Amino acid sequence: MIIILKSDARKQQIEALKEEMVSQGFAIHESAGINTQLLGLIGDTSKVDVDHVMANDIVETVQRIQEPYKKANRKFHPNDTAVDIGGVKIGGGEFQVIAGPCSIETKEQMTEVAQKVKEAGAGLLRGGAFKPRTSPYAFQGLHDEGLKLLLEAKKATGLPVVTEIMDASHLSLFEDVDLIQVGTRNMQNFELLKELGKIDKPVLLKRGMACTIDEWLMSAEYIMAGGNENVILCERGIRTYETAVRNTLDLSAIPMIKKKSHLPVIVDPSHATGIRFMVEPMALAAIAAGADGLMVEVHNNPAKALCDGPQSLTPEEFDHMMQKVTKTRDFFQNL
Amino acid sequence: MIIILKSDARKQQIEALKEEMVSQGFAIHESAGINTQLLGLIGDTSKVDVDHVMANDIVETVQRIQEPYKKANRKFHPNDTAVDIGGVKIGGGEFQVIAGPCSIETKEQMTEVAQKVKEAGAGLLRGGAFKPRTSPYAFQGLHDEGLKLLLEAKKATGLPVVTEIMDASHLSLFEDVDLIQVGTRNMQNFELLKELGKIDKPVLLKRGMACTIDEWLMSAEYIMAGGNENVILCERGIRTYETAVRNTLDLSAIPMIKKKSHLPVIVDPSHATGIRFMVEPMALAAIAAGADGLMVEVHNNPAKALCDGPQSLTPEEFDHMMQKVTKTRDFFQNL
Amino acid sequence: MIIILKSDARKQQIEALKEEMVSQGFAIHESAGINTQLLGLIGDTSKVDVDHVMANDIVETVQRIQEPYKKANRKFHPNDTAVDIGGVKIGGGEFQVIAGPCSIETKEQMTEVAQKVKEAGAGLLRGGAFKPRTSPYAFQGLHDEGLKLLLEAKKATGLPVVTEIMDASHLSLFEDVDLIQVGTRNMQNFELLKELGKIDKPVLLKRGMACTIDEWLMSAEYIMAGGNENVILCERGIRTYETAVRNTLDLSAIPMIKKKSHLPVIVDPSHATGIRFMVEPMALAAIAAGADGLMVEVHNNPAKALCDGPQSLTPEEFDHMMQKVTKTRDFFQNL
Amino acid sequence: MIIILKSDARKQQIEALKEEMVSQGFAIHESAGINTQLLGLIGDTSKVDVDHVMANDIVETVQRIQEPYKKANRKFHPNDTAVDIGGVKIGGGEFQVIAGPCSIETKEQMTEVAQKVKEAGAGLLRGGAFKPRTSPYAFQGLHDEGLKLLLEAKKATGLPVVTEIMDASHLSLFEDVDLIQVGTRNMQNFELLKELGKIDKPVLLKRGMACTIDEWLMSAEYIMAGGNENVILCERGIRTYETAVRNTLDLSAIPMIKKKSHLPVIVDPSHATGIRFMVEPMALAAIAAGADGLMVEVHNNPAKALCDGPQSLTPEEFDHMMQKVTKTRDFFQNL
Repeated sequence: MIIILKSDARKQQIEALKEEMVSQGFAIHESAGINTQLLGLIGDTSKVDVDHVMANDIVETVQRIQEPYKKANRKFHPNDTAVDIGGVKIGGGEFQVIAGPCSIETKEQMTEVAQKVKEAGAGLLRGGAFKPRTSPYAFQGLHDEGLKLLLEAKKATGLPVVTEIMDASHLSLFEDVDLIQVGTRNMQNFELLKELGKIDKPVLLKRGMACTIDEWLMSAEYIMAGGNENVILCERGIRTYETAVRNTLDLSAIPMIKKKSHLPVIVDPSHATGIRFMVEPMALAAIAAGADGLMVEVHNNPAKALCDGPQSLTPEEFDHMMQKVTKTRDFFQNL
Repeated sequence: MIIILKSDARKQQIEALKEEMVSQGFAIHESAGINTQLLGLIGDTSKVDVDHVMANDIVETVQRIQEPYKKANRKFHPNDTAVDIGGVKIGGGEFQVIAGPCSIETKEQMTEVAQKVKEAGAGLLRGGAFKPRTSPYAFQGLHDEGLKLLLEAKKATGLPVVTEIMDASHLSLFEDVDLIQVGTRNMQNFELLKELGKIDKPVLLKRGMACTIDEWLMSAEYIMAGGNENVILCERGIRTYETAVRNTLDLSAIPMIKKKSHLPVIVDPSHATGIRFMVEPMALAAIAAGADGLMVEVHNNPAKALCDGPQSLTPEEFDHMMQKVTKTRDFFQNL
Repeated sequence: MIIILKSDARKQQIEALKEEMVSQGFAIHESAGINTQLLGLIGDTSKVDVDHVMANDIVETVQRIQEPYKKANRKFHPNDTAVDIGGVKIGGGEFQVIAGPCSIETKEQMTEVAQKVKEAGAGLLRGGAFKPRTSPYAFQGLHDEGLKLLLEAKKATGLPVVTEIMDASHLSLFEDVDLIQVGTRNMQNFELLKELGKIDKPVLLKRGMACTIDEWLMSAEYIMAGGNENVILCERGIRTYETAVRNTLDLSAIPMIKKKSHLPVIVDPSHATGIRFMVEPMALAAIAAGADGLMVEVHNNPAKALCDGPQSLTPEEFDHMMQKVTKTRDFFQNL
Repeated sequence: MIIILKSDARKQQIEALKEEMVSQGFAIHESAGINTQLLGLIGDTSKVDVDHVMANDIVETVQRIQEPYKKANRKFHPNDTAVDIGGVKIGGGEFQVIAGPCSIETKEQMTEVAQKVKEAGAGLLRGGAFKPRTSPYAFQGLHDEGLKLLLEAKKATGLPVVTEIMDASHLSLFEDVDLIQVGTRNMQNFELLKELGKIDKPVLLKRGMACTIDEWLMSAEYIMAGGNENVILCERGIRTYETAVRNTLDLSAIPMIKKKSHLPVIVDPSHATGIRFMVEPMALAAIAAGADGLMVEVHNNPAKALCDGPQSLTPEEFDHMMQKVTKTRDFFQNL
């Protein structure tokens, strides 16, 4: 970390700042140009709070050299991480498609969709029991009743299941869930992240709708710092000024994450675009960009879906897409 | 709500959609142009899920006429709401300044700052005990120990106190807190909002960093729908592409909220800008735009603050600003 | 176009508005619900100015049914357009890679890069002679001297050439240029667009850095309305809050453009990301998403490039990428 | 400027980079920590292109100390600049309101509005003759005929006039215009800026819809570098994800510009919000934030305006607002 001092910083102030840094265990490397004076901090600066240093009146600006995340950082873990989810792996060369309805509605719906996505080649089954909805008057999910239906579908198909948690107090209900999803609105719900750091179940961490890649990795770091290193990232579109799509899918996040981190990253083209016909091209583009998996919404009757119907594929559309997904994944593995 | 149908919608499909709407209790007003066919829904559409309607293959688009929020809506509550916080009022013509340190650090700090901001004219005291930090390695607040110090300062000064809650499970600790703050990262933590809807303590709902005004009002609606109508909104800057400031303070949100809602709205210029010298001009501009109050960070030694030092005012700076704030508020009340 | 009236609109005001619309040649279809009154305009509303209608005090809101672009609209031109550029085609199933240096610097540089990108399989040669630079002190391009070098490279390689125009007054210099590029900062330089509408040379219209897809199509419409229908669109990243990349490449724009318009659309992964290692994965993802071509920066010595070195590939890197590009394009054509 | 080198940079590469910098006239100050090696450039680095340095493979990142703008920089011109526009001053303590219709339509309209805004206290008259419209089918302005009407109104009222230029080739028509406006879409039309740098007429430079404060100052620098230092900046809202307003007015830009630059800065609340009832509160907030002036749209019959009717005030509304504007400006001058 390089601290660039204001040109009018007085000697006494500089000494005080240096002492503070030394007292935190850093060695100081000083350097003075003609109009600029720098302090280089030597030591592990990943945990230094830039804002705290910036608060000092004599500091012009601070340049981080070391990233603020350690456990999620590829520099310290050069090899790709593969996360095992009930015997199915994502990352480290393993690719999976997670599919299922946005929200669990009935036994018939869940059973039928589960069977169909399995037949089409999905490796994991998704379904929402706790639904974060913008309106308090919208359908909020079936809660524990929904989880029960999801676990029945797991039993019937043998597919590991993924579902979203909205509050740490619900954790006891998720015992038989294989992969716990943290939704975009909870990416910086730090109390929830801390609780998830204490268990050893895999966590699917969706990107916050307006969060940077570095903030996303810091949220993964929260979970990992607690001891749970089974984190999978999921890009799901970011908020921009464009209104033709629900969110702007940021596929450039994939190679950037791969550069910065060893964690697997998958893509959710359904929530990103919010529009049925865009799911397939964006899914294929995600594979081309290097994604370790996909998460796709499938509903047996999208027009009657209680949630996110406009972006759900029918089982037939999903089956058709999966044939292309499989071929595309094979192609890029051999490219 | 107007449903605009695709030009190739078949009669049978249209009938099915109409039946569905009628079964939900709406009367239908049909209207056909040359290339366009419309269905107008008659009834209380505030709770209709637009996405659900859009999922129908024959729907081109949907135009909402009625807002999806009711309790927060000025149309149904034409008069301004004033929220009473331990005897101090915000809204309905009453203006307050909330001041104090970003995070509670020591008894000395809290006592000193509390006394100073009271003398300068603050009506409420703030201080964070649970701190949402981007990094798991940054100072996370003193938790219950911090709340204890805050309540001591309340006792010493007589000022009602405001502090942030990060998880519903902490609610029992907030019994003597006068105003519970929901931070920007939790604006759409719906489980927390639902819990806050069950109590009758005032809630300060900060705007999500990348949330629209309508989403913000929908989050207020979550609390109000639960039965707690004591909601105060707080604009604190939104995320944009501009990097010269921490966030872009959206003062146009104030007149827009005043148009759409009867709830009080205050402004936090400290978090919005993140830069000390900008706090005063933005505070005065907020008053000019019609804000019902301000929330300002004050620290007795910003350079040593464990959090958000770069934007904290010293007690002297705050006192100086308060003199201008008071005069400015008086001026605009009489304009 | 549906005009939704305010519930308190008086009969006389409504009659006046209706008369105004009739006088513009529209038939009116009226429709009244219980609290809502609508006017449907029947006729060609693509040229109606929504803002003008909104300015009327009795109008609540306006819902467009018909898109405001006609010549660029797929509804009126169902088949893909292929644009012929000196014998090379883009669109309608034809795919091309445009490559070359960001800015033309010397005869040696231009000749060498041109030869190399041709050998690697590029179909067109790019090179900037007029450079839009944020700073007035940065290298502004070689101007006519640069164009001369570009045309020499065209002669030597036989490749059609692409270069950017910054002002309509330079148009006479572009006579032998095959494809005239309009840069992101000039996408809404309407005077320039109008001039380009008067010629019959193909135009490459880059997306404005913060322009919506609809605004982009309206800029294409400017050129086409003038009589020049040879327009190719180029997605080059949009401005968002994310700072890890220069801009956020919006690949979802490709299927969306394909839905809305018949015009070809290519992708520039070099400017979008601004980072060398991201060019290849984003190029392949663009192909997967359905792009009709790519535009890639290649420099014989990126470290010495006078412009955009950090994102330029060496000829060797480009050659390596082109082998993957060709295979990927083949794969998706046969998928 | 501090160049931070990658930890694996080889000695030979570093020497080559140093030589290049020395050859550009810089002295080098080297500094090595344990894992970090820095090169500090000593000399006038305002004109160094960061991207060029970043293109070097051994460079990790570059930290600018010196701003890239010089003539617009307050560091080199500590005192506020006042710009004289036909005898009326903006900046340096002088405040003005510019008012008039969005577009010039008829002699009657122009004359009437001009007279009314003068009576209400406007210091300058605005009116658009060349209109940048998103659609080629929308009214494009009366061009030279419009300028003629504007100059007649100038003569009749004695008010200096402001109007927008869209292309440098029109410059000869602007001889009697007092203040030439560059619109938001042309803020980075560098060819136009260069031409405006060659004349000595004041220029009103609107902020680009998605441009940073630094880019805005760089565009001012373009004009000033050419020799024309009569530049006034105009904040008019930036593009964000929020859809309740047309653009998000960034009032924090005012104190930030005042810190960075000596140039006057005014605010256009009409274009920013796009909504009539928001013009007044945002105008007053702009004054509170320190603006040197306002630009407001006034139309004698907003419902019939050919452009931007929804945001135009009637002369009566403008008169009413001006009374508050005058008192507010007086108040803040004496605060």
